[in-house]
Amino acid sequence: MLKIYLAGPDVFLPDAAEQGRRKQALCAQYGFEGLYPLDNEIQPADSRERVDLRIYRANVDMVHRADLGIVNLTPFRGPSADVGTVFELGLLAGLRKPVFGYTNDAATLLERIKRLGKVTKGNGRWRDLMDMTVEDFGNADNLMIDMSLLTAGHPIERFHDLAGFEQCLELAGRSLSVAAPVAARHRR
Amino acid sequence: MLKIYLAGPDVFLPDAAEQGRRKQALCAQYGFEGLYPLDNEIQPADSRERVDLRIYRANVDMVHRADLGIVNLTPFRGPSADVGTVFELGLLAGLRKPVFGYTNDAATLLERIKRLGKVTKGNGRWRDLMDMTVEDFGNADNLMIDMSLLTAGHPIERFHDLAGFEQCLELAGRSLSVAAPVAARHRR
Repeated sequence: MLKIYLAGPDVFLPDAAEQGRRKQALCAQYGFEGLYPLDNEIQPADSRERVDLRIYRANVDMVHRADLGIVNLTPFRGPSADVGTVFELGLLAGLRKPVFGYTNDAATLLERIKRLGKVTKGNGRWRDLMDMTVEDFGNADNLMIDMSLLTAGHPIERFHDLAGFEQCLELAGRSLSVAAPVAARHRR
Repeated sequence: MLKIYLAGPDVFLPDAAEQGRRKQALCAQYGFEGLYPLDNEIQPADSRERVDLRIYRANVDMVHRADLGIVNLTPFRGPSADVGTVFELGLLAGLRKPVFGYTNDAATLLERIKRLGKVTKGNGRWRDLMDMTVEDFGNADNLMIDMSLLTAGHPIERFHDLAGFEQCLELAGRSLSVAAPVAARHRR
């Protein structure tokens, strides 16, 4: 069974464990095994090594074990996605594993930055309050994120709640039954 | 000469090109070639393909050409680093290229989130206004970012202006003269 790394700020939710179980149940419905990087499962008393380092290693190991990833790119504490999730998206891309992404916020990056404060346009370019360029490509987030998913053949799904996540599962099932990575096929 | 991919929100500065030249001059001083992903160099009229996709491809190609990366993790439009930069950090990690990082904000992630609004502690865990867990490891950012650099042997440098960047160059020079990647050595 193909394993999906479930990246997202879901691990910071008050009901993080339940959210993980809901996602894993959905994965199973679509014939996948969901790997959920829940920080809470690491107990401070387990070893002398610092906790953050052990969580990092556990997450990176999990990414390596996964055959593909689904990333929750919903904006987190600002106009962009959670940076932990984005790091994992980059890591998955570097490891050449298929990645699917969704956001529960249908607005564009430019729309969200406009909500933060005054944004002005000059010489065909938007600038924020700090005079920093704001991308205007109609994307959900920074172009590196949107385009990494677009070039992988499946742009970010912009839906609500778990609908976007489920849409990713559907796409992954269809796409990988046709072109599943060789290594993944052997591991089934 | 080893090539350094210069990741950071510097490309969004009003004087993005000049900042790139300053960084490249510093790279040269330390015996490196700096590769600077300046979006502005791509002209909309060059081709029929969408501009964001061409910038993405140019940046990813540049990351592949680089022997190592230096990432500017200064908080950008929120309490965390620029997501485009963090994607590239993950990509460099996935491609197993050495990465060095700095931030010009000496505060911890927890301190910055506290500035955003009420943060409360219960059961030994900090939670933000949305009741989402806030990491409390004394790190500069999400643990995936800090720990990826720590495990690479060089934690994030927390200095101001280009001092952090220069510190990275110094570290890179020392660290890579001892253990430069084989492929990079052949390319010199």
